[in-house]
Amino acid sequence: MGGHPIPSDPRGRPIGVFDSGVGGLTVLHELLVRLPHEDFLYLGDTARFPYGERQPAEIERFSAEIAEELLRRRAKLLVVACNSATSAALPSLNRRMMQTTLGLDVLGVVRPEALRAVATTRSGRIGLLATPTTVASRAYEEAVLAIDPHVTLHAVPCPGLAAIIQAGEQFDERAVETVREACVPLHEADCDTVILGCTHYPLIQPMLQRMLGPRVTLVSSGAALARQVEHALSTRDLRNPRVGEGDYRFLCTGDAEAFHELGTRFLQMPLGPVEHVELAAVEVPA
Amino acid sequence: MGGHPIPSDPRGRPIGVFDSGVGGLTVLHELLVRLPHEDFLYLGDTARFPYGERQPAEIERFSAEIAEELLRRRAKLLVVACNSATSAALPSLNRRMMQTTLGLDVLGVVRPEALRAVATTRSGRIGLLATPTTVASRAYEEAVLAIDPHVTLHAVPCPGLAAIIQAGEQFDERAVETVREACVPLHEADCDTVILGCTHYPLIQPMLQRMLGPRVTLVSSGAALARQVEHALSTRDLRNPRVGEGDYRFLCTGDAEAFHELGTRFLQMPLGPVEHVELAAVEVPA
Repeated sequence: MGGHPIPSDPRGRPIGVFDSGVGGLTVLHELLVRLPHEDFLYLGDTARFPYGERQPAEIERFSAEIAEELLRRRAKLLVVACNSATSAALPSLNRRMMQTTLGLDVLGVVRPEALRAVATTRSGRIGLLATPTTVASRAYEEAVLAIDPHVTLHAVPCPGLAAIIQAGEQFDERAVETVREACVPLHEADCDTVILGCTHYPLIQPMLQRMLGPRVTLVSSGAALARQVEHALSTRDLRNPRVGEGDYRFLCTGDAEAFHELGTRFLQMPLGPVEHVELAAVEVPA
Repeated sequence: MGGHPIPSDPRGRPIGVFDSGVGGLTVLHELLVRLPHEDFLYLGDTARFPYGERQPAEIERFSAEIAEELLRRRAKLLVVACNSATSAALPSLNRRMMQTTLGLDVLGVVRPEALRAVATTRSGRIGLLATPTTVASRAYEEAVLAIDPHVTLHAVPCPGLAAIIQAGEQFDERAVETVREACVPLHEADCDTVILGCTHYPLIQPMLQRMLGPRVTLVSSGAALARQVEHALSTRDLRNPRVGEGDYRFLCTGDAEAFHELGTRFLQMPLGPVEHVELAAVEVPA
């Protein structure tokens, strides 16, 4: 813990946020803006990035290992800022964490965006932009229909878009064309609300908003999740009582310097020192 | 005009936007997002940047020269995306442009933000972050009080902040400290609404929002101006009737390459080719 004192009051403990890489930093960005009094601990499992093509059982094990590390560092709540990890591991993580002495809550993406989109749409036609894997999982479709069966979800897979953004090409011709193509079916379906179903996509939000027009509401994971985290902390009486700003720190399993450089662009805020961390292996029951 | 056909329908003409440099690109950013069907022509007078320390009469002449150039390129409306030029030249530009055959509207910053801030505040305590020159001009104070005399404006001059942002240091320690210091008097005055009175400041908006807390509403020039431009176009029946996106082009009086590089960070959107332009001298009556 690098000499950081551990507060005995659970309200003073940090919120743990994790992702397979830097994408989840767009979620942390929103959390930092909306919950300035909290401390945050972000873990990027960059050594094993990306999770997208991995088997669910493997992702489940990785997520359990990360959760143990964040728990060891006294996180009071966990946020899964990763679509793949949410789909593969949220239920098992939740079971696991409810067995700890704290009875830790684990919040993931997908459901908060689904809720916000359903609460926003007037036409009942919601669009979704996501990776092919996320679209194929039908996770957003199920989440939306569970909240309101009278809503239609128009899912548009965007192959390569997250990689284009991560490579720093979000403003070049290839990116513009990729985004423009993705907008065509959303225009045709006349969606009034569009979910950004990948944590990389907030970096192209202005371009998307311009292409979709000002009457379309964009729903991102970070904005939707921040609200749920706030609710969860209030319900559990876990809000940090401090008046000033909290601090935020970074852990990653891969190269710390590369994380710092790439991360600043995703966080869109000052990014302090990054600590390299080795995760302990965890057995996950089949 | 590089071969661009001039539409005979005035609705098809571009909106002219100008500034002394790249700061106004944060205003153009909002215009591109909120008015995607319009064409835009942005002129940065980078050869004579910055306007801040110049005499009003000189700024008046520069603005008249820019307006003539944009008029020559058939702008249907002018936006002054520059605090110094708005303070020094808006009234005389308006007089000059109303004499053209089109009866061209010229919209500037300051008044739209003042209106939005007064419409937003509940406590009646509005904060202002701006350059020392803008604060000393009392332009925002006058604009706010003209709309509602029962409101208090707490103006905080931020020496050096625009230069720090322009130098690309918006996330380093010096920037963080500068912004943190600026927030102290706003906290003490318990403002619930804060005007970003400089076109550079939207680049640090997330950091500011975090420091001021989620209950404070930030009002930027771009967002406020975009609404007024929309009203003006509607009133004059000048909205572009096209369905798809318009285009946007760039002119600058200084080095086109430097403008392109710096500009991309301020526009936060793809920035196409930049044309160097020499402005013709204009006589301004004393």
